Amino acid sequence: MNNFFISKSRRLRSTPFTSRIEKQGVKNYTVYNHMLLPTTFSTVEEEYLHLKKDVQVWDVSVQREIEISGKDAHKLVQLMTCRDLSKSKIGNCYYVPLIDLNGGMVNDPLIYKVKDDKWRVCIADSDVLLFAKGISAGRNLEVNIFEANIDTLAIQGPKSFKLMEEVFGDEINKLKFFKYDYFKFKNNKYLISRSGFSKQGGYEVHVEDIKSGHDLYDHLFDIGGKFNIKPGAPNHAERIEGGLLSYGNDMLIGDNPFECGFEKSVHLDAKIDFIGKEKLQIIKNKGILRNLMGVKIDTDQINLTDVNLLNKENKIIGDLRSAAFSPDLKKIVGIAMVKKDFCNNNKNFIININNKIITGEICSFPIK
Amino acid sequence: MNNFFISKSRRLRSTPFTSRIEKQGVKNYTVYNHMLLPTTFSTVEEEYLHLKKDVQVWDVSVQREIEISGKDAHKLVQLMTCRDLSKSKIGNCYYVPLIDLNGGMVNDPLIYKVKDDKWRVCIADSDVLLFAKGISAGRNLEVNIFEANIDTLAIQGPKSFKLMEEVFGDEINKLKFFKYDYFKFKNNKYLISRSGFSKQGGYEVHVEDIKSGHDLYDHLFDIGGKFNIKPGAPNHAERIEGGLLSYGNDMLIGDNPFECGFEKSVHLDAKIDFIGKEKLQIIKNKGILRNLMGVKIDTDQINLTDVNLLNKENKIIGDLRSAAFSPDLKKIVGIAMVKKDFCNNNKNFIININNKIITGEICSFPIK
Repeated sequence: MNNFFISKSRRLRSTPFTSRIEKQGVKNYTVYNHMLLPTTFSTVEEEYLHLKKDVQVWDVSVQREIEISGKDAHKLVQLMTCRDLSKSKIGNCYYVPLIDLNGGMVNDPLIYKVKDDKWRVCIADSDVLLFAKGISAGRNLEVNIFEANIDTLAIQGPKSFKLMEEVFGDEINKLKFFKYDYFKFKNNKYLISRSGFSKQGGYEVHVEDIKSGHDLYDHLFDIGGKFNIKPGAPNHAERIEGGLLSYGNDMLIGDNPFECGFEKSVHLDAKIDFIGKEKLQIIKNKGILRNLMGVKIDTDQINLTDVNLLNKENKIIGDLRSAAFSPDLKKIVGIAMVKKDFCNNNKNFIININNKIITGEICSFPIK
Repeated sequence: MNNFFISKSRRLRSTPFTSRIEKQGVKNYTVYNHMLLPTTFSTVEEEYLHLKKDVQVWDVSVQREIEISGKDAHKLVQLMTCRDLSKSKIGNCYYVPLIDLNGGMVNDPLIYKVKDDKWRVCIADSDVLLFAKGISAGRNLEVNIFEANIDTLAIQGPKSFKLMEEVFGDEINKLKFFKYDYFKFKNNKYLISRSGFSKQGGYEVHVEDIKSGHDLYDHLFDIGGKFNIKPGAPNHAERIEGGLLSYGNDMLIGDNPFECGFEKSVHLDAKIDFIGKEKLQIIKNKGILRNLMGVKIDTDQINLTDVNLLNKENKIIGDLRSAAFSPDLKKIVGIAMVKKDFCNNNKNFIININNKIITGEICSFPIK
């Protein structure tokens, strides 16, 4: 695969950490929510192994936070998702599918209930701000909606716990998965959640003030040497193995939540009002025809452009949506949308690329 | 400025022309509407001079087209913009600001009325699809909204007219600015508009079928040698000189249409219903405090990160939003949001970058 440069412009916003990250030798960027997301400092394979062993600090400021507040805030947040939020609690994070009128996936944010009338929707790569503003304008809701000036640092990897304990004290060890609380360092207060886009454990620090973000960033690298701390980024092979979905890669607005593994978050029987409810009921009654599944492919490199999975009779049984080389499994791991009849663990398939036949098998998550 | 690579993934979609463009030696990409936009093949300076002299073919498939059809299509399109579309005609393109409930800019698309109940909204870089879906869901409108499978080639430059005449015949010369019609080549039919993101003249071909797109693309380069045809891309210096605005660079949701030069497209007295009408009336009554203006800066390079324009007393009088070196003017040209009192042609300002003082002047468009 050839290498191409990225043309920077104000439209692709930098983050408060961009200048530090460039000094630390970032090599690649991608663009996510109109912002620069660093992707590689060395090689994705080295970073995969390091993430599973030590601790990384990721600039994931691109996970923009849409703040929705006001009298109708709960109503609007509930309108956007099929997951029942009627019993939601302050201090919890909720991973939810956002749904359009056709039952299609709009985004898969982690949402934080900050107060009874204030939510933060921490989004994947689509303009949820405009979706929320559209619904709100259409329904005349009393809400205030804006993209908050919050930039997120993820501290990920098995040594993230010891590292964060050194900074924030023993208290932070009590924070359970998908909970958040406020912690202090140097008289700065940080909203920290036990969350992150890896399966190696860790935290996300939601920085509301650039100075306090810089203080923390620099301190982590000052003291992190003994944990072999490095700057890093979400790693495709690691997140694919763990079954963490990437909106825009694995799913888009043409896919529904049942197909994407969100069936437990579709609460059609709850007494709640959300967009797409009727359509999701119809889809459920009919039954779905395909599902996102893990795949292992017997090669070490693949060019991800419209790759179909075929059965022995050369019939299409699915399409590949994400793929990366796993240094642990020594082959390509991926996520594919697979026809229902073929969604069985160990089911074999082939891929035909320029008349070269490559074999693979379908599997469940985590991919082992 | 350092160079960084772009990490490709399925989330940053390729276009039907990507493989051709890579063979033609594209060096840089940006990302726009979740898709790859080629930006440089040689240098932006060479391409600026070539664009003003000859003809270029641009892959601007990133200008995604949101199709809105059905009984309430006109109603929904009108709800999104403050420009009165009650007398709109099939065959016309309308450049309109899309507005949120606060009177903020959501996008500045060119919209095409294709039938009485079918529109195409050809968008700048924000998810208008989700804004339209949100309003529609909120208001229970009878519409069908989707991103059409349309990919656009722009043929731009003074020799575009002769080139297109050779392909589509003399008829195409009759097409006036911001009009569109259907033209044939090799039994393929193309919707072609007299439009494009340069001031050098030309056309945009809206390709609905990949095969017909490839036929045309290859034919243009087959016959274009005598016009010195080259692949190209929107050129910042050229479009800044011409006062063509770039959403995400020059304006965002925090700016209103009066500030961004759309005052002639804000029809508050028309008997039409649009989102943000009340707020725009309030803004108009109060009067605005700033305006987008052209600037010339006496240097040949500038790093666009929060650059403020200062007066002699070191007070901030504006912020720079776009900037590029103009090979014709031999200095930086830019677009800045300038405080009302300083929006005068020839008004001088200074910029302080690391204690280096650079001088500049404010000007109107086109920048000369």
